[in-house]
Amino acid sequence: MGNLWQVNEDSFSTNLKQIQSQETVFTIGNGYFCTRGTFEEGYPHETPATLLFGVFDSVPVSKEELANAPDWIGIQLFVNNERFRLDKGKLLAYTRSLNLQNGVLTRTVHWESPAGIRVRINSERFASLADEHLGLIRYSVTVDESPKDLPVAISLRANFNAARGNYDVMHWETTDQGHSSDLLWLQSETRKTNVTLVQTMSFNADTTAFQKEFVDGDIEPSIRLVGSLNPQESVTTEKTVVMCTSRDSDDPLKSALAHHQKILNTAAEETAGNAHNVFIFDYQLQKQDEAWAHFWQQADILIEGDDKAQVGVRYNLYQLRINASDDDSRYSIAAKGMTGFGYRGHVFHDTEVFMLPFFTYELPHIARNLLLYRYHLLPAARKKAASNGYAGAQYPWESTLNGEETTPPSIVHPETGEVIPVLNGFIELHITSSIAHATWEYWRVTADEKFMRDYGVEMLLSTALFWDSRAEKNEQQNDYTISNVIGPDEWHEHVNNNAHTNFMAKYNIKIALEALKWLQKTAPSKANALIEQLDLTDERIAHMQDVQEHLRIPQDPVTGLLEQFDGFFKLAKFDQEKYKGRKDSYQGILGVHEIQKYQLIKQADVLMLLTMLRQEFDYDTKKVNWDYYFPITDHDYGSSLTPALHAILGSELGHTEEAYQMFMKGTLVDLENLRGNTPEGIHAACAGAVWQATVFGFAGLRVTEEGYTTDPHLPHNWQRLSFQFKHKGEPVHIDLKP
Amino acid sequence: MGNLWQVNEDSFSTNLKQIQSQETVFTIGNGYFCTRGTFEEGYPHETPATLLFGVFDSVPVSKEELANAPDWIGIQLFVNNERFRLDKGKLLAYTRSLNLQNGVLTRTVHWESPAGIRVRINSERFASLADEHLGLIRYSVTVDESPKDLPVAISLRANFNAARGNYDVMHWETTDQGHSSDLLWLQSETRKTNVTLVQTMSFNADTTAFQKEFVDGDIEPSIRLVGSLNPQESVTTEKTVVMCTSRDSDDPLKSALAHHQKILNTAAEETAGNAHNVFIFDYQLQKQDEAWAHFWQQADILIEGDDKAQVGVRYNLYQLRINASDDDSRYSIAAKGMTGFGYRGHVFHDTEVFMLPFFTYELPHIARNLLLYRYHLLPAARKKAASNGYAGAQYPWESTLNGEETTPPSIVHPETGEVIPVLNGFIELHITSSIAHATWEYWRVTADEKFMRDYGVEMLLSTALFWDSRAEKNEQQNDYTISNVIGPDEWHEHVNNNAHTNFMAKYNIKIALEALKWLQKTAPSKANALIEQLDLTDERIAHMQDVQEHLRIPQDPVTGLLEQFDGFFKLAKFDQEKYKGRKDSYQGILGVHEIQKYQLIKQADVLMLLTMLRQEFDYDTKKVNWDYYFPITDHDYGSSLTPALHAILGSELGHTEEAYQMFMKGTLVDLENLRGNTPEGIHAACAGAVWQATVFGFAGLRVTEEGYTTDPHLPHNWQRLSFQFKHKGEPVHIDLKP
Repeated sequence: MGNLWQVNEDSFSTNLKQIQSQETVFTIGNGYFCTRGTFEEGYPHETPATLLFGVFDSVPVSKEELANAPDWIGIQLFVNNERFRLDKGKLLAYTRSLNLQNGVLTRTVHWESPAGIRVRINSERFASLADEHLGLIRYSVTVDESPKDLPVAISLRANFNAARGNYDVMHWETTDQGHSSDLLWLQSETRKTNVTLVQTMSFNADTTAFQKEFVDGDIEPSIRLVGSLNPQESVTTEKTVVMCTSRDSDDPLKSALAHHQKILNTAAEETAGNAHNVFIFDYQLQKQDEAWAHFWQQADILIEGDDKAQVGVRYNLYQLRINASDDDSRYSIAAKGMTGFGYRGHVFHDTEVFMLPFFTYELPHIARNLLLYRYHLLPAARKKAASNGYAGAQYPWESTLNGEETTPPSIVHPETGEVIPVLNGFIELHITSSIAHATWEYWRVTADEKFMRDYGVEMLLSTALFWDSRAEKNEQQNDYTISNVIGPDEWHEHVNNNAHTNFMAKYNIKIALEALKWLQKTAPSKANALIEQLDLTDERIAHMQDVQEHLRIPQDPVTGLLEQFDGFFKLAKFDQEKYKGRKDSYQGILGVHEIQKYQLIKQADVLMLLTMLRQEFDYDTKKVNWDYYFPITDHDYGSSLTPALHAILGSELGHTEEAYQMFMKGTLVDLENLRGNTPEGIHAACAGAVWQATVFGFAGLRVTEEGYTTDPHLPHNWQRLSFQFKHKGEPVHIDLKP
Repeated sequence: MGNLWQVNEDSFSTNLKQIQSQETVFTIGNGYFCTRGTFEEGYPHETPATLLFGVFDSVPVSKEELANAPDWIGIQLFVNNERFRLDKGKLLAYTRSLNLQNGVLTRTVHWESPAGIRVRINSERFASLADEHLGLIRYSVTVDESPKDLPVAISLRANFNAARGNYDVMHWETTDQGHSSDLLWLQSETRKTNVTLVQTMSFNADTTAFQKEFVDGDIEPSIRLVGSLNPQESVTTEKTVVMCTSRDSDDPLKSALAHHQKILNTAAEETAGNAHNVFIFDYQLQKQDEAWAHFWQQADILIEGDDKAQVGVRYNLYQLRINASDDDSRYSIAAKGMTGFGYRGHVFHDTEVFMLPFFTYELPHIARNLLLYRYHLLPAARKKAASNGYAGAQYPWESTLNGEETTPPSIVHPETGEVIPVLNGFIELHITSSIAHATWEYWRVTADEKFMRDYGVEMLLSTALFWDSRAEKNEQQNDYTISNVIGPDEWHEHVNNNAHTNFMAKYNIKIALEALKWLQKTAPSKANALIEQLDLTDERIAHMQDVQEHLRIPQDPVTGLLEQFDGFFKLAKFDQEKYKGRKDSYQGILGVHEIQKYQLIKQADVLMLLTMLRQEFDYDTKKVNWDYYFPITDHDYGSSLTPALHAILGSELGHTEEAYQMFMKGTLVDLENLRGNTPEGIHAACAGAVWQATVFGFAGLRVTEEGYTTDPHLPHNWQRLSFQFKHKGEPVHIDLKP
């Protein structure tokens, strides 16, 4: 492998699954929007998408989904009136490459038209990390050969394409459109939620020999550049696009036009050029380089001796970055980020358990926003708890902007019409403690006292109050139970005393009470106000302490082996040997009902607990549980979330080889479409787990009260592992060699 | 009211419901396609649709829906770069009119642009009845006033718009697009069923001073005409569109291009004009006039003394005509025809019970095709019967092309997520006898022996066999029952011995055995083949006779009063007085479960039986049942199907005033959006019922073995009622005066 900053594609496959998977892989973005790696010229059955952070429209049953915006990347090239597209003519050469160092996607093509004209086409695009409203494409055409050396008519049409949907479902309607002397604009509105989006476009060539023309229209407003080229001549064009929404501005049209004009003017001044010539791309690329350099300076992980892991890890960090907003706390990172339609842009515990640690350690201002999102959801979470008869705040299993539960209550099978109930929104509870845990970790690592004082303590106490009321007292045994839940292992439903759920609930109460003490010490009036607001009487606090102390944890007192839930050990053992070479999950093979009878789990459950709270458990406990649960987990076709996460515990226990295998399953999950569903978007939680596996696992980083420690377990081929993180605002550099 | 052939709109309402209702009302069509009456220039939140006969795409749960094709009517007008649309600038005058005599929709507009330019815009459009592939628009612009009398830049852009869906759901993907010197074309494919559609377009002005330009593109390929006009000058343009699908042709692109070129050439020859000038519209309009004149010559109903009824009846006949294919028996007329998205283009018993009589009496070649559609469905209907454990053929309650049951088995409430079972596809059985009845009526009126021999007898026997196996024998009482059904009154589910269902089942067996006897006499070898194919043993036939004689009909032997189903008379009576002025159906008010407890019905059930088989019942029986059931039927908010149908029995019983009221509820249901759901499409069954009410009701026409009789009961203000029909191929003219 050459460049360790590049994801490359050296030939074009016409396999549709492969094309759609690569569309996901080659997504560009900047946290404000992401755009899938479809082609400027389109391709049959492609799945183009530009999703904007927090821009939703309504859908039946699942409430809301990120609304695929009018496509901004389209450029249609006509060579002597023959349209260029990859399924037409003859493809002589093709490469595509995503430069992770600066987020630029480049494609080169050598193409022969049906009439025998040969052209070289080069396109580069990026979503500006320096200016989140800005997207840029540089598109150039060189005539290589023309029959009889005749000049070739070249027409380039840059458009906005309003005929885009989430798969088949359209969310936008054009409300206005127009153009000025420099710019063309399209104003659209989501059909049900009434979010306004304005997109502006300029499109220029590097030669005045090409005529420019504006083509207004509601559906495909365009700017055309028309001219001709002799053999060996080239034309280079730049498409500059600005996007603003009514979420950012009261008058997004005015804002977008002004912003775009400023971009044109600034570039013109800086380069002393002419506004109709090409130079914006280079000028903005410089800023893009700087913005990404700034990111990598903080967040890069250097791995020597393992090029595949090196590029793979960087790719996962790239994904974490492009899917997180720099400044918007009204929404969080979805299960697939903004890279595809899977899970409709809903936010799960994936963010807090898997992704947040990366941001907490590397980009704490973003981690803060992600937690603020949960703070904004508190009223809705209180309402959910109350509607179920509980106190405090119960977070929704899936959420969008307003914190309503957006898990579909049931789905209708598209073919059989069978109704399949979806229970997660009702009884999968542990997201509430995940959020509390993430809040606590953020504080522990960043020491952001202001956040803790103003938001964190309230979140911790509100979630603790939920658990306090959710736990059921058993008078005889003088303990508490939590019954009828789904734990992280979603293949077993309606279980009692899930070890993960119960232990995390205890922990949630513990840190909440600790945080309250801290607040009483450091900001007594704030603490009193909170005590009053949450009605934290002495009795209530005493009860919380009692629950915290006596909530049942099903664990063997001698060996330390945790039982995943009451009765798990009584379930049948499953002989996996018979299913070697399977291509489906065990749930897929056995069915939703049958799988419940077996000791066979979808993903880390007990082991996730031991990973998240690894400071609370000793080596022997981790070992006995690893030995029990690791072999009965479906690492290949169960959940994509936990393979990489297993590397943390695996490393600590000295299973470096297994840890490395799990880590690579995570690292390559999208680059190699290991689970077959990359077309629907990247596995964002997995990207976070890859960072955790590297930093918490192979480096063994642990932040303690005193500072931090490392406990390296480098895979055998790694010559060096180096990264930095922020501890209480101070940069720490880690550089490990075998 | 002036012209008795026109539906007029004299002003433009900005009320969205009204706009969408009028889009349905002003639908044009020719049986191959229909296009809703949206505006060429678009309007916010409009619901444009072009639906093609039998062109479906897949959808979840409901299996298939007619796929809204790329919009062919778009013309965007720019006046000095300002876009004309009805929500912009100032509307000085507006009229719209649908000419029922020739199917041409005309709109006139006098408009002032925001910059103060005044223009007159005139548009006319039609779907050619003479050439089903052809749609035409004539669009002219006259500059009325311009500030300082300056010339005005005029740009007209005629497009195909691929960004159309069934509401939000897109069904088409562009697969190719291009243009030649005269024509621009778009080739699309349905996303799941892979039907190919090719649309070709030419767009010409009546002056060479306007420059023509082709704008290629996948989403909105267009032809632009650009020029300028001085005050008082005009430009007239013509947009000619041809549509062909892979249902008609192996190479729809070639077919469409050749067809379009032929249209251009023919018009050029005939008018000795120049292919780029305007003349196609007038030439084709002449053919359109002739085709419609031919239709009206056969099908018109003349009513003197009641202009509202006159126009209304013609409007309903217009709808019947434009929604029925002239030559395609692979699909039938949907509940909403091709005029909107309601019921997704699925075919119900609405066709056979309500619409078919019109075609049987007026356009028997179409009636034959509609019945052939059911013949093609026999294999699927046999499969449905077999899968339920019965013999013969059970027709699906809803169907599309292949005869699979397409009634959704359940629907999920879009907001609550509640699952609502839909039982009609399982237990509403009477459609099977409706089809048999329609087959018999067709034969009785047309004497089409070839049809009866080749198809009809097989349909009659196959459906009779279903009933024969469906009836359950009661040994004690020596009779048969049919339990657990829904009758035509859908507000009562799981009922036993629905009088309508049982009587029609008997009748179905009776006519089947009669038809078999006829076949044995006239085509014995064909009869023997059928007997063998259907395994019609002597025992089987004896059993059928037994069922036919002893199937239970719940009827008072003295009064003749039929009980709608076992136990109906024991249900609670309902005091409707309390609900005067209600705006919802009784089911809406009481709920799906509560309504079942009352003697309150959605639509004619017993009375529909007495109407369909009016020759089988005497006056007294009709009277006693009318008196019982008419008052307990929800004529206003129950089903739209039967108000007009009631006029038949009402007339016969001398309730002419009530009959007229019911008839007008049907006649105006869409013209005045009486049920609030005209935006989703016309009430096609109701249109058929209007014809029946007029001909069978007010004229009292009855075809007998000897010939025909009339029994006129004209509404008091009708001075004349005149129409003709075909009896055994011979035209019969009826002319009635009070």
